[in-house]
Formats: sequence, structure tokens, C-alpha cells
Amino acid sequence: MRDTSDGLPRYELHYWDGLQGRGEFIRLALEEAGADYVDVAREPASKHGGTQAMLAPIKDRHAAVIPFAPPFLKAGELIIPQTANALLYLGGKHGLAPSDEQGMYWAHSLQLTIADLVAEVHDTHHPIATHLYYEDQKPAAKQRTTAFLEARVPKFMGYFERVLEQNPAGEEWMVGARRTYVDLSTFQIIEGLNYAFPHAIAAMSGQWPKLESLRQRVRALPRIARYLDSPRRIPFNESGIFRHYPELDHRGSPTGAHKKEA
Amino acid sequence: MRDTSDGLPRYELHYWDGLQGRGEFIRLALEEAGADYVDVAREPASKHGGTQAMLAPIKDRHAAVIPFAPPFLKAGELIIPQTANALLYLGGKHGLAPSDEQGMYWAHSLQLTIADLVAEVHDTHHPIATHLYYEDQKPAAKQRTTAFLEARVPKFMGYFERVLEQNPAGEEWMVGARRTYVDLSTFQIIEGLNYAFPHAIAAMSGQWPKLESLRQRVRALPRIARYLDSPRRIPFNESGIFRHYPELDHRGSPTGAHKKEA
Repeated sequence: MRDTSDGLPRYELHYWDGLQGRGEFIRLALEEAGADYVDVAREPASKHGGTQAMLAPIKDRHAAVIPFAPPFLKAGELIIPQTANALLYLGGKHGLAPSDEQGMYWAHSLQLTIADLVAEVHDTHHPIATHLYYEDQKPAAKQRTTAFLEARVPKFMGYFERVLEQNPAGEEWMVGARRTYVDLSTFQIIEGLNYAFPHAIAAMSGQWPKLESLRQRVRALPRIARYLDSPRRIPFNESGIFRHYPELDHRGSPTGAHKKEA
Repeated sequence: MRDTSDGLPRYELHYWDGLQGRGEFIRLALEEAGADYVDVAREPASKHGGTQAMLAPIKDRHAAVIPFAPPFLKAGELIIPQTANALLYLGGKHGLAPSDEQGMYWAHSLQLTIADLVAEVHDTHHPIATHLYYEDQKPAAKQRTTAFLEARVPKFMGYFERVLEQNPAGEEWMVGARRTYVDLSTFQIIEGLNYAFPHAIAAMSGQWPKLESLRQRVRALPRIARYLDSPRRIPFNESGIFRHYPELDHRGSPTGAHKKEA
């Protein structure tokens, strides 16, 4: 799925090669949409691909729109930086989001909450500094991961379970009566948490049966199933957001009081 | 500015009383829009205000739309959780964002990058766990803050400076030729960083003259100036995102190589 009739790709995904990372949320939406797209960094240089081509819009000293970092989406001449923003765009164009105003903002807010969770997952292995190696911040990583597994995972996943439970259209999908990009992203975080912390999550996931059903439902979507079986799906690994460091994976017990959050 | 002609507030801001926090980005936009709004937690119980009223939509076991956490905006019956999402909504309704598609997504992406920065600021004082006190994670806070001031602040602020520099409509505003919510939010992060880390930021801010001009320009907007002088503007304090802990404030020197980020 690469070229449209005029020879130009409809979409360009700009993201690092070799990892799922934040780009994977956009990949899943593009795949479920059946969209024409190129994953720029993964294309050969002979086809104007590669990491330098992927980063070029960030380094452009004359562009009006400058992404801060990958991922970003190009839709023809349009540049859409930030994962949730790209999904907002794709959701509207490809029937991957509700079309009513409340539904659109509700879906986007869920994606932003997923983005918050993703940032916290990143910080389990990089609690001190993004530019230092994990090996240089291991004691803090252990502490942060313990707090994350004990307090944050139950809070986030309990919330998402409740979203399914309180969906007036039924418990099948997160928002409304049809699958949206929120379902794809929720699938991705469940997969990622299970990859990163298999023991800790196995001990907890009985508390979110509706999310486990959703996970199977998304996995069974024909286009998603084909994508997951394809070489386009990069396996989870220790360059991405969800990293499996066995020493961080443990069974937590809930902690006590929570302060209000700013 | 509270009641519309039918006696109902046009907007309800749901956020904690007593701190600026993430809610402040929405407050600034509501003020600049001259919008009718109530800051629910800050209203007396006799007017259906207070913290319990503010939190009620989060605790509602029957609602279709459930915010994960404050802040969220109510616009009549519409509920819009997440700061950047509320600004996306207000921007479109009140001329606080470009009306063209590229401008709208560009502005939103900048707000999302500001949200990423805000999360990193939060983690300077809470690097291990949100539910633990600062005092219980001080050594990690010192390390994280050092990395933040040396590597992240220059990266983010250098980026925002470049956004002004490369704006085809001129260096006056972040996006296009008019002030948008992005300018208000950028003002807020400059104010906040100066509050939290006065020495460290004073040593660096010469590197972002255009942002300093923007800061003065926003401060001089008549509605913003009136708001900042009013009791509605809560002073910065150590319950918010930007906290002044003198022991964290220092002059950093740039670090070396950066790894790619997932």
C-alpha cells in the first residue's frame, strides 16, 4: 500500500526505524484505515527514505511548521506533529473516530490520557534523564517502576475499564458503537504493558476483564490481524517505550494515600 | 464574568483551587477570550462550587464522558477533558487559534509539546512517584532537575525560539499573524520556569530573546494584564507544577551526546 494513482504517497509517517515507540499508535491507525502510506525511515534511500529523510522536516531552517520530534505525519503538504494530533486528523478522515463534537473531543481526551501513560512508561526506565542510558539510572528506575506498577497502572487501567463499563453504546468499544483509534491505542498499551512487565501485569489484569476482551477484539480486526502478522509490525524491543527489563518486573501491592495532582 | 442571560454559566472550569497547575493554561485562554466562566472549585458551596462539585463528573458512575483528572472544561452539556483538548475547543470557538487546517493542527501540536514540557517540569520535583512527597524523593529530584536544566530546557526553549524565528507571518506570535492560545501557554511556561528556577533560567534566557519579547507582549494584552492583576490569578506556589525549591535551582552547563528518543 504505497502509491496513489498520481504516484505520490498519500501519507508519510516520520518515525524512527527499528522500534514501535510512539509511532506505533499512528501505524495502527494507518493500517486499520487501509491508508496509503510510507514509513519514511524504513524505506531505502533510493526511494527517498532513511533516517535522514525522516528527520529532514525537523531540521528545515525555513519551514513554517517544525515538528519537535518524531513521530509526525505528512498528509500531502500538511504536516501534523505529535501522536495524538495525527490520530485526531486520521480519525476524522477515515472514520476512526466519532463524527459528533462530544465524541470527537472524548476520543481525543482518551488518546491524551494514553499519551500521559506512555510518558510514564518511558520514565520507568528513564526516571532521571532521557539522554542517559538505562544502566546509568537503574536504582531510580527500580523505585519509579515500583511506584508505577503499584499506583499508576491500577489507576490508569481501572479508568479505562470504567470507560468501557460506562459506554452507553455497550462494552464492546471505548467510545461509541464502533471501533475508533482509541481502541487501537488501548490495545497497544495492554500489549506493551504485558511485554514490559509480564509478571506484574499478569497479577493485576484480572481486574480489567473488559479491557482484555477489547484486546482480543482489536487483535481480531482483519486489517490489524494482517498487520500484526506482517514484517511491518516491528516486535517490541528495548529501544522502544515498552521495555522488558526483568529486574523491573515484579508483583506490586497497592499503596496507601494519594495526594492531589497538579 | 459569570452568568449569561439565561442564568447559566457558559463555561465551567473544573480544576483544583489554590494552585495554577495545568488549569492555568485554560484560565488564560478563557480570560483572553473574555468568556463567561466559573472556576468551580473556587466558588462557594452556596453557588454549587467547591472541590467536591469540581470532582463530581470524575466520580459519576453513570456518565458517558469521564475525565481522568482535572482540569476539564464544561461547555454547556459538553465535557472536554485534558488541557490541550480544552484549548483546541476554545481556540476554535473564540478566535484563539488559526482557522485553517494546517494552522489548527500546528497550534495544537505546539500545545502538546508544551504539555510534554509541563510533565517534565512536574517530574523535576516528583521523579519517582506522584503520590510521594517531594521530601521523600529529593536526591532523585536533584539529579532529574540537573538533567532537565542542562539538556531539556535548552532543547524545548530553543525549539520555541525557532518557531518564532521561522514564523512566515513574523516573529510577533508563535503561529500566524495573531495571538493564539499557544502564545498564552508559552507565556505561562516562561513565567513558570523563571519562578521555579530563577538563577538557572536567568543564566540561559539570553539565548531566547524572541521568547522574552513574546512574554512581554502577552503580559501587555489588556485582558491578560487585567487578569494577572486580579485575585483570579493565583500566585505561583509549591502546590503547582512550577515549584521553587532553591536547592534545585542552579546554573547548568550543556551536556554531551543525546540518544534518539522513543
